Amino acid sequence: MIKLAIDCFGGDHSPEANVKGALIALKSLPDLFLVLTGDEEKIRRELDGKDFDPARIEVINAPKVIGCDETPTVAIRQKKDSSLMRAIELLRTDESVHGIVTIGSTGALVAAATLRVGRIPGVKRPAFCPILPTMDGGIVGVCDSGANVDVSVQMLRQFAVMGSLYLECAYGIERPRVALLNIGVEAEKGDELRKAAYPALSETEGVNFVGNMESRDLLSGGYDLVVTDGFAGNVLIKSTEGACLEMLKKLKKDICSRTINKIGALLMKRMFDEEKRFMDYRNYGGSVLLGCKKIVVKGHGSSNDAAVAKCIEQAYRMQAADLTEKTAQGIAAIAPEAE
Amino acid sequence: MIKLAIDCFGGDHSPEANVKGALIALKSLPDLFLVLTGDEEKIRRELDGKDFDPARIEVINAPKVIGCDETPTVAIRQKKDSSLMRAIELLRTDESVHGIVTIGSTGALVAAATLRVGRIPGVKRPAFCPILPTMDGGIVGVCDSGANVDVSVQMLRQFAVMGSLYLECAYGIERPRVALLNIGVEAEKGDELRKAAYPALSETEGVNFVGNMESRDLLSGGYDLVVTDGFAGNVLIKSTEGACLEMLKKLKKDICSRTINKIGALLMKRMFDEEKRFMDYRNYGGSVLLGCKKIVVKGHGSSNDAAVAKCIEQAYRMQAADLTEKTAQGIAAIAPEAE
Repeated sequence: MIKLAIDCFGGDHSPEANVKGALIALKSLPDLFLVLTGDEEKIRRELDGKDFDPARIEVINAPKVIGCDETPTVAIRQKKDSSLMRAIELLRTDESVHGIVTIGSTGALVAAATLRVGRIPGVKRPAFCPILPTMDGGIVGVCDSGANVDVSVQMLRQFAVMGSLYLECAYGIERPRVALLNIGVEAEKGDELRKAAYPALSETEGVNFVGNMESRDLLSGGYDLVVTDGFAGNVLIKSTEGACLEMLKKLKKDICSRTINKIGALLMKRMFDEEKRFMDYRNYGGSVLLGCKKIVVKGHGSSNDAAVAKCIEQAYRMQAADLTEKTAQGIAAIAPEAE
Repeated sequence: MIKLAIDCFGGDHSPEANVKGALIALKSLPDLFLVLTGDEEKIRRELDGKDFDPARIEVINAPKVIGCDETPTVAIRQKKDSSLMRAIELLRTDESVHGIVTIGSTGALVAAATLRVGRIPGVKRPAFCPILPTMDGGIVGVCDSGANVDVSVQMLRQFAVMGSLYLECAYGIERPRVALLNIGVEAEKGDELRKAAYPALSETEGVNFVGNMESRDLLSGGYDLVVTDGFAGNVLIKSTEGACLEMLKKLKKDICSRTINKIGALLMKRMFDEEKRFMDYRNYGGSVLLGCKKIVVKGHGSSNDAAVAKCIEQAYRMQAADLTEKTAQGIAAIAPEAE
């Protein structure tokens, strides 16, 4: 049995999306058990009349919610009875709970997971690894995408190891092709960090390093994992998403500006619907925080029930493949080569 | 009269695109004089039979070409008789020559412009400032986009001053809205550099600082200039361009996959042609290297004649507005507040 804590608050459509998502996941995964945290009355109201096995759900009352505008370190100290902190506390104290899924405050999650749940021995810093769809129908992960704005070569090596194992365990990608985000493909490109990281990644046990990648090639399908510092990773992810969304918006506006375009678009409705689905981040699960002692999945704040269900299924797959244990071994294997 | 040196080699369509572009620019700007550098025989062959005033063109023979794969510092030392270095030498020695336009090696250009032409007094490092179209029909500049991978707060302040003056002089944008690229909009976001740069930019004379910008908002039209280090700037520009191009490619593929889509696209042909034109970087001129003693414009390597002409017109506007002198004054005005 796999047991996960579900933080039911903090998202745009909470708790409805969280609770409904939990029930979808329960239906598709027979040996899953879920602990829902948050305002119990509101959660029970969402569960009311729904078709599910009550023996596979537990609700823990936690009336408070940590908002995205709160200072993470303060919030996690002061709001112990929040939906997030009760879930985190469960991870810390209950060995049988394997992970957490939340769509609430990212900052509070990183602080709480790092400080309360703790890191896998040897891991310098946990790192986010969101997944994006590539234009050839595959996926690409980016690690780190924002948890660590200042990184070292050793941290980049760890991101490569953790991200590779994640892609293998959760997506079945064998020997993921790992690239270093840089401003040119040549080995000597970039700042001091990148110049030092290139040879270090080439020699890192368990990492299939294929060289530098320029940001324009992120969606090309040529790479499975891109390692980078959290600042550049954040810029990379958000500018890629932003450009795609702005372009779709522009297309929509231009279509509406002329009747002939509207007729054309009507004929292409099925295609445009597919493009929209392709672009919808909610179809690709959450961003996982790699390197913690337990599985941590952060879904988008605007997640609907289907998106929450995807995040739960993602956490399930990671635990089913024993990712945490494998990561501990992978990190231990590269430890002797520290900077 | 404005006099510019045109490096006629080093691009994908050189020297044809360079020479034809030069003639287009000469036609549209009556008081322009151009010095073409490169293999004289090949340049003369391109000029042959064309309609232009020979009194407004000079050709300087420089048979060699610096390739994009050459090490910049070595190439600029060893290839003094290359088209780029002869143009740079002209800038250095001839007071009447106001600037250079090239579509050749970026690395060699930065090295040569910095070392041979020199910086405006007080400028710590020249920086690139390419222009992108925004979705509301405007433009946005990004400074630096790759010349400096490691920067200081003082350098970011200078990028803000130089970029603002450039947008005012070359594009008539009054009090350009300047943003700092960051991983969140709050003042306290980012690494140590960004945290220190935020208040410093707020207090910088001549800079209309509007706060942090997340990369997803680059094309929104809410900003005129984004300042950043060259690493993140490079990631920003290339991922934005890359995502737009990959999306267009995907649309094209999906359109071809079904007959009904092809019919729809046929009706929308005019719109799709407009989108393609909108996306074509060649319509937005080159990336200027700000902070040098003379005007430096670098066009895309794949520039055609129209794109080269745009770069020349851009250099012309910068010189006509006396950008170099204004930059010297702007930099001097912020110098006392150095770090």
